[in-house]
Amino acid sequence: MKRIYLDHAATTPVAKEVLEAMAPYFSQRFGNASSLYSFGREAKEAIEDARQKAAKVINAEPREVIFTSGGSESDNMVLRGMFKPGDHVITSAFEHHAVLHTCKELEKYGIKVTYLPVTKDGFVRTEDVKKAITKSTKLVSIMHANNEIGTIQPIAEIGRICRNAGVLFHTDAVQTYGKIPIDVKKMNIDFLSASGHKLYGPKGVGMLFMRAGASVRPLITGGSQEHKLRAGTENTAGLVGFGKAAELAMRDMGKEAAQETKLRDTLIDGVLKIEESWLNGSRQNRLPNNANFGFSYIEGESIILHLDIKGVSASTGSACSSESLTPSHVLTSIGLSPVKAHGSLRLTLGKDSTKEEISYVLEVLPEIVENLRKISPMRLARK
Amino acid sequence: MKRIYLDHAATTPVAKEVLEAMAPYFSQRFGNASSLYSFGREAKEAIEDARQKAAKVINAEPREVIFTSGGSESDNMVLRGMFKPGDHVITSAFEHHAVLHTCKELEKYGIKVTYLPVTKDGFVRTEDVKKAITKSTKLVSIMHANNEIGTIQPIAEIGRICRNAGVLFHTDAVQTYGKIPIDVKKMNIDFLSASGHKLYGPKGVGMLFMRAGASVRPLITGGSQEHKLRAGTENTAGLVGFGKAAELAMRDMGKEAAQETKLRDTLIDGVLKIEESWLNGSRQNRLPNNANFGFSYIEGESIILHLDIKGVSASTGSACSSESLTPSHVLTSIGLSPVKAHGSLRLTLGKDSTKEEISYVLEVLPEIVENLRKISPMRLARK
Repeated sequence: MKRIYLDHAATTPVAKEVLEAMAPYFSQRFGNASSLYSFGREAKEAIEDARQKAAKVINAEPREVIFTSGGSESDNMVLRGMFKPGDHVITSAFEHHAVLHTCKELEKYGIKVTYLPVTKDGFVRTEDVKKAITKSTKLVSIMHANNEIGTIQPIAEIGRICRNAGVLFHTDAVQTYGKIPIDVKKMNIDFLSASGHKLYGPKGVGMLFMRAGASVRPLITGGSQEHKLRAGTENTAGLVGFGKAAELAMRDMGKEAAQETKLRDTLIDGVLKIEESWLNGSRQNRLPNNANFGFSYIEGESIILHLDIKGVSASTGSACSSESLTPSHVLTSIGLSPVKAHGSLRLTLGKDSTKEEISYVLEVLPEIVENLRKISPMRLARK
Repeated sequence: MKRIYLDHAATTPVAKEVLEAMAPYFSQRFGNASSLYSFGREAKEAIEDARQKAAKVINAEPREVIFTSGGSESDNMVLRGMFKPGDHVITSAFEHHAVLHTCKELEKYGIKVTYLPVTKDGFVRTEDVKKAITKSTKLVSIMHANNEIGTIQPIAEIGRICRNAGVLFHTDAVQTYGKIPIDVKKMNIDFLSASGHKLYGPKGVGMLFMRAGASVRPLITGGSQEHKLRAGTENTAGLVGFGKAAELAMRDMGKEAAQETKLRDTLIDGVLKIEESWLNGSRQNRLPNNANFGFSYIEGESIILHLDIKGVSASTGSACSSESLTPSHVLTSIGLSPVKAHGSLRLTLGKDSTKEEISYVLEVLPEIVENLRKISPMRLARK
């Protein structure tokens, strides 16, 4: 059975060209980039080339890119690196756990956190950001696009508000970096987190954009790598992979987005024909590759498992919290009841997704939903 | 020109078998290990297999292994994860910067740090550890083997002292994990840091052993990966590589150590024939693969660059601090004057090092030293 992978928001396969670019750095050009000899300088040059490519995607300068082990580390580096007790940070109720759980930690140390509510459509209101800023506000951290429901936040406007108020602005762009246009200069972004493996790059590699002039305390101290901001021997192969993935993403961004949007719309139109189903998050200002559905009476996890049997990989929402049984904080933040929030299905397309794959999903999904509803205690209770 | 790589303490090439084990996890079995579907479970199983292999090397339980992005992160996780102001930590003057610089950070937050001196031979004295323990001591962090001079510290005895005093014991084993025997149970180790790329595994992957019952605050919060102790999508390929490297290290430990010790002794005997040269660190209780020499009147960096021209990759000491011009803190800690500390050359062998390579080094090195001395202002000043 051919596998249909529709969980690109969770992770993506490493692209062939990316793996080819990485290959020589494992066993041949394996020198330590911090070494003095030519062998190490070779690695150093490859890393600086990757840094340039990574910066270009968001119109940043190479020196403003700090490579990390992933999006979560980047988020933690910003949030754990600038506050003192009494400082205030503004974020939203439906951020990724790397931001939310870290903010919860900050509260233990006397840092005040405002968790802005979001609309039923899945957007942070810019006027809420404006109103929440106080004299002690140091940072606003609002994600670029939500990882579960794909809604794209008004970060250019939030950036302007922050800059005017003299407040720093961080955005978790793990779902958007290389997928939709970002210009850190025009958007007044001070910090931006990105991840390689959402972008057909390797896992275990991420970056933090930090505007020249901005600063954070390092999260990992030791050697003087990454301008003394992130200690640890550089993961040359990984960084080269990130760079290559960034380059390909830049090249193909428009084409891929158009292609995915078309397939996504077919998918949404098809799935919404199922009775008592709905789309979570606005259909406008939504990531080209994201569809997140709700179905009455049934559990998302059961849908996933039945889709899996049919060869389709999907998700209820975030993979990062799949071990917990609490309903998605994202879906409850947009006003769903815990029961309704349990019935979610996230399908996220990729560059290699096809019309045939979508047709197949539209063929098998209604039957799965129907069968699950037949045995649903929630449905029976209602009758 | 064939390259002779003698900087295995800085980093190692990924072994063929390791890369083969990693290969399927980039683009085929790329599923997110935290996903519900079969594709994700496949990744999860591969990671748990790696965890088992990583644990076995040090006689730990798999659940006691937390995968990280490297040795520096592991060190930071321990040191930044347990103290409150007023707590006391004991370490040594010649730890790796990932420990030393992090301890310097801790001091800013009211944590007291004792930096134990070391002997001229390069050892921490166990009686010094004992004497330094006070009622507020929470942790002792002493490296297993020094990364520059290769001296193996008496960690079994330090472990016993700590356990008896009710103090936690951490050891940075980045240079010894998989190379010389470690038994965390017998040695009373509570925390141990290791790194993949020193072991013919990939860069960007490390581990922290944390004894069952011990605990630290996570350094990176967010998703519930690694038992909620280290957030971020699991780097499946990297972790599989670590596991394979650990397995191979276990299998070949004795053989490799014997082979390297023999070559190292030939190297030491040969180099010490150069006049006004010496070995830094004791010849006994020294890593099988480490030789660190001093040469009067000349600079280590010049030796490195001339060896590089001759095709030999070597180091003055730690690659992590190669960008700084201050003399090695390790060499000054064992009593070398700053001038003498500047004349160091570290040669570290690997499993594929050969007799021929050592002969070649012994052929070219005396001439390099002689030529550099001819133009040395220090030598001229003395005449």
